[in-house]
Parts: sequence; C-alpha cells; structure tokens
Amino acid sequence: MPALILDRIKCLGNIEKMALKAKKHGLGFRPHFKTHQSATIGQWYRDFGVSEITVSSFRMAEYFAAAGWKDLLVAFPFDPSELEQLHRLQEKHSVSILVDSVEIFDSLKRVRRKTRFFIDIDTGYGRTGVRTEDTETVYRIIRDSRANRHLSFEGFYCHAGHSYRAADVKERRQIHMKAVSDLRALKQQFSELHPRVLYGDTPNCSTQEDFDGVDTITPGNFVFYDLFQWSIGSCREDEIAVAVACPVVSRYPGERKLLIHGGAVHFSREELRLDGRVVFGRGVDGCPGTGPSFSGAGWSPMKEPVSLTEISQEHGIVRDCPPVFFDRVRIGDLLYLLPVHSCLTANLMGGYVTTDGERIGMMPRPG
Amino acid sequence: MPALILDRIKCLGNIEKMALKAKKHGLGFRPHFKTHQSATIGQWYRDFGVSEITVSSFRMAEYFAAAGWKDLLVAFPFDPSELEQLHRLQEKHSVSILVDSVEIFDSLKRVRRKTRFFIDIDTGYGRTGVRTEDTETVYRIIRDSRANRHLSFEGFYCHAGHSYRAADVKERRQIHMKAVSDLRALKQQFSELHPRVLYGDTPNCSTQEDFDGVDTITPGNFVFYDLFQWSIGSCREDEIAVAVACPVVSRYPGERKLLIHGGAVHFSREELRLDGRVVFGRGVDGCPGTGPSFSGAGWSPMKEPVSLTEISQEHGIVRDCPPVFFDRVRIGDLLYLLPVHSCLTANLMGGYVTTDGERIGMMPRPG
Repeated sequence: MPALILDRIKCLGNIEKMALKAKKHGLGFRPHFKTHQSATIGQWYRDFGVSEITVSSFRMAEYFAAAGWKDLLVAFPFDPSELEQLHRLQEKHSVSILVDSVEIFDSLKRVRRKTRFFIDIDTGYGRTGVRTEDTETVYRIIRDSRANRHLSFEGFYCHAGHSYRAADVKERRQIHMKAVSDLRALKQQFSELHPRVLYGDTPNCSTQEDFDGVDTITPGNFVFYDLFQWSIGSCREDEIAVAVACPVVSRYPGERKLLIHGGAVHFSREELRLDGRVVFGRGVDGCPGTGPSFSGAGWSPMKEPVSLTEISQEHGIVRDCPPVFFDRVRIGDLLYLLPVHSCLTANLMGGYVTTDGERIGMMPRPG
Repeated sequence: MPALILDRIKCLGNIEKMALKAKKHGLGFRPHFKTHQSATIGQWYRDFGVSEITVSSFRMAEYFAAAGWKDLLVAFPFDPSELEQLHRLQEKHSVSILVDSVEIFDSLKRVRRKTRFFIDIDTGYGRTGVRTEDTETVYRIIRDSRANRHLSFEGFYCHAGHSYRAADVKERRQIHMKAVSDLRALKQQFSELHPRVLYGDTPNCSTQEDFDGVDTITPGNFVFYDLFQWSIGSCREDEIAVAVACPVVSRYPGERKLLIHGGAVHFSREELRLDGRVVFGRGVDGCPGTGPSFSGAGWSPMKEPVSLTEISQEHGIVRDCPPVFFDRVRIGDLLYLLPVHSCLTANLMGGYVTTDGERIGMMPRPG
C-alpha cells in the first residue's frame, strides 16, 4: 500500500527559512495549515515563534483549536451555514473571518461575540474578493459592519494566486508588485482605521523581497513544497519534503514499463507539464531494499528521473524507464515519487510516515 | 460544508438495469465496488442476486469482507507487500487475484491456501496485463503456477479501459469487439483448462450488446455514473445518482460569478471538456430553500446549466451564470453539481447523504 513519506529535516528547514524571512522583513507570520492538516506538524511551528494560524474551513479551525491553537483565521469568505461553528469556536478562541460582500452581514447579524474580519481583496487573481479598484464596496463593507458592534474590521487579506499561473519570473514579479502596491494604497486610504495587511502565497513569499505595506504573511504550501512549486522556481528539488512510496507491482520488460500501486486516490489528478509531457509524479532515488518499511535515509534526486505519466484510481504507470534503472527494479520494491501538488496528496493520504519511521496523523476525513 | 447527495432511486435503478443486462446475456455479474466504497450501498446489490464482488485493493477487500462478502476478486496485479492480508482474508473468504507476470510467483511461493487467479489480459489499453498476442507468457504463467498446488488458474480478466478515451461510438465499439474477440480466442486456445472470462468496464457494459465468450461482467462506475460517462453516452444525465451540494458563499454581480464551498478536495481535479471549456462539475436544479439540510425531492437538469470551471483546494467558481438564475441565487443557498468522476469524488467526500436524509458511511481513509 502506498505511504506518504515525510522528511522531517527538510520540513523543519522549510518552516525555519520562511520564519526567518518574515523576521528579516519585520513581518508577522500566520502560516496556512491547509497543506499539512496535521496537529503534530502544526506543533513544529511553535519553535519558530508561530502563535496564530490560517485555515481554509471551519472544520479545520475546529481541528486545530482542539490541538491548542488560540488565534485562527478562516481564510475563506464566510459561509453562513457555518455560523454555529463560529459561535462554538468563539467561546474559547480568537477567530477571524473573511468578508467580500455586504450581503454577508445578513447572516452575521446573529453574531454575539467579538468577531474580527478582514476584507478579502482581489488584485487580479479573479477568484474571490473585492477588486482593488472597487473602493466603494470596501467602504460599504466597513460602514455596514458597524451595525453590529461585535464585528471588528481588522484590515485586508489578499491571496494573489495568479502567481501560480504566471508565464515567467518577470510576470510573477509584476503580479506581486501590483498586489503589494494595491494593498499599500488601500491601507493608506483607510489609515484612520489602522488596517493590517495579510498577504502571501508560497510562490511570492518564497521568491520576492519587497513587502512594503504588508504586515503579516500567510503562505502554506512551503512547508512541503512540491513538483509544481519547484517547476516555477519557488524551491529547489531537494527542499520538497514529501514523497509517495509506491510498491512496484508489475514489470513489462518489452516496454521498460512499471506498474506501481499509486494512483489518483493517492497523488490526486493534479498534473504538471514537464519536459514536454504531462506527469503526476516524478521519481527520486529512495533507499534500496524491498518491502513496505522505510529504511530511514531519505531520498535524493535521480540522475535520469522517471515520471508517473498515467494514473487511474489505484494504478500508476511509469513508462520508458532508463535501462539501468529498469533492470535494477524488482516487483515488491518501493518507488519514491514527488507529488505535483502536496496539499491534495496529503489530503488524500490521510497521514504520514517520517523518514525516521514515526507515524503522524492528520485531520480525519469528513463523512 | 459540501455534502455528497445520493439519489437512492436512481442508484437502485442503475444496479437493476445492469443486473438485468447481465441476466439477459446469460452473464455472471461481479460488480466492482471501488466506486461507492460503502458497505451499506454494497448491501443494495444483494436484492439483485449479487454474491461475488470486485475490489481494487486488499484494504477494500478487508472492508467488504467485514461487511459479509465471501467471494472477492482483487482486480489489481498482486502486490507482494500484501501477502499477509491475502493470508488473513483467505481464512474465511474466497479471494481471487490477478497475475500478469511469471515473476510474481516468487512472492506467491508462500501461499498455503487455495488461491484462485485470473490472468490479466491487455487487449490494447496498455495499462496492465499480458498482451493478447503474447500467448507464450500466458502459457508460461499457467505452467509456472503449477509449482504451487494452492494456486488455481481460473481464467482471464480484462479491463478494456481504452473505451474511456475512444474518439466516438464507432471506435468504442471496435475496442469492445476486439477485446471480446481476443478473449474468446484465448478461451478456445486454453479450452482444456475451462477458463472463465471476466470482462467489462462501465462504458462497454452500458452500451454494447455482443458479449459472446464472456462469462461474467465486472463494471463499477455504473452504480452512480457521472458527467464523464454521460459525455460519452454511457448514461442519460438523469441517471447520474450523485451530486455535490455546495453552499453558495459569495456573489459577484458585476460578473454574474458565484463562489461556492466546493473544490479539489471535494470534486477531485478530474476535468472534462464540455461545450468548449474545461469543467469540474455541472449544476442541476436542486430543491429551493437555503441551509445545509436537503429537502428530499432530488434534482433535475437545468435549462441553462451552469458549470464549475475553476477550483482550488476548497474554493469553486461558477462564472457567467444565466441572469435569471444569478438573480435568484442567494448567499447561503445550496448549489447541486454533478461530478466529472464519481469514483474520485466519493473517495474524497467519505460518505453520503441520501435525498431522503439518511447518512451513509464508507470505507475509512487510510493514515
């Protein structure tokens, strides 16, 4: 059965590097926990001074609140069906929410405890948020929130996720500079309210250096990184902290093809175009030896990397293996593959095994 | 929070239709349970005479064995790391496995109870299996299996999954006819061993009528169907038995855009090109009314269907809504969307709520 292997050293290195970057720029650090979804891994951030976190749902907020986190931002425009969860959490925790419309205040009328909110700002991503230029809506949201004295406007939040699809480094930098400049302008325009600015996806926080106007960064994926982040230059391949260990189940010598147990219910269907073909994972050299136990030494880049190019629900196919590699591999070996999108892979795998053999759990699946 | 809604009537209709088709053609029916992964839904097949099932992993075999199924085929070339699970299951159950290489017999040397195996045959899909024309390997597998008297050759298994990517109905029919003809030839060639032929993916079992030479069909997805199956003609839209109910969380009137809570961790990243764009889900008319409870009446096709065209981890974006629809929708409403690939959606959602309000569990996630 496939297992999600976590290299704790790499992971701690990624957390430390981002914490130091925040410190260097005088920024707060409220990491997003949607990538790892694990109380145990969450604890690792404590040593780097982290005390406030970002999550993507109330389910996740409840899970991390139970794990001892007191200050949680649910970075998703508030879902009125989750008012009960908000009330429950507020009994003992500081919960911040996102708002991007005035309509939501209808549902928030029933709020009876202090509720901090940030206005979600869209600087060009186009997913959620009030568009930067629409300052009238920003103004109306702030004004309408005053009808309920429990609502407290805290500032602006922006996830400039179009950084993920930028064509190149230059375009990514333009996206970042526009976002930061937009947020700075809003901050100045509403300066009498002393708004704070929360910002930052993994590509921008990993590679940019100008955060003038930003108060706190909120990246998440950096804790593991993945092939996609590596492909756009957010990290080095040897900073990717998770790999899926997949048993080799069959060999087809005529085509130098391998069947592995490892498919869409393990990797997800997130794909990446790499070296002219679509891949779902890329091999690294794991430890030699067979069987499901991991021998502890981590992994290293392959000289001639193999790619996972076809997946179905549980099946994975690795084609056109280099002859030397193919001749060495035996049925029953484990093949280690870096995932394209570590957030989705972790969400599917439901837990980790560290390279030193520790099992680490994560938030249970709903249902 | 999104919920996976199951229309029991449609689901029972799909099971009945496939059971009747098997009966009409004099075929056995060993449905694949990887789509629903649910003990409760599994029980529904009993009324249609089903007593043997197909699964895709030993984890799944253990889950359904615990739910009372006695005859299980693990339709994945045998993974030697799962020998212990095989032994445990065999104590009380009849377990069949797939073999597609002679190398695997090294691992199967330690088998001490009767183990039925089918040879996985590749009639052109190219995923797993011995290629039809490679009868020498088929012969060697049968010969080598005799070294262990517990191994019992039962016949041939084929998943002609290239039916999923056929360009049109004609090509799909050619794929089916070649598969059936190949299997028939193998059956004749090894007739003195009385091999049985197990065959059948959902597209072919749903649409084809010539099964000459096949003994048993093993489709799985048909229990729910999905947008993909509908797009290639395996089913009608009103036969799709699951929909994801997603709260509408924000409205952007300038663009007639909706934000829903429903993303890649609910739908999966499986995509479908429909009407010239990539979609991850397609709206149906659900019951009116707001809030997370489902009022029971099922759903019906939309006159002007809306599409889920962008997803991230938890976010879903529905763009360019028809004006009448957009004006009607309120924050807090539920939007019902048919998934592209119901197997992956069910696997992520972890459970069902039926249109009559019953909660139905499924196999727990690993980890």
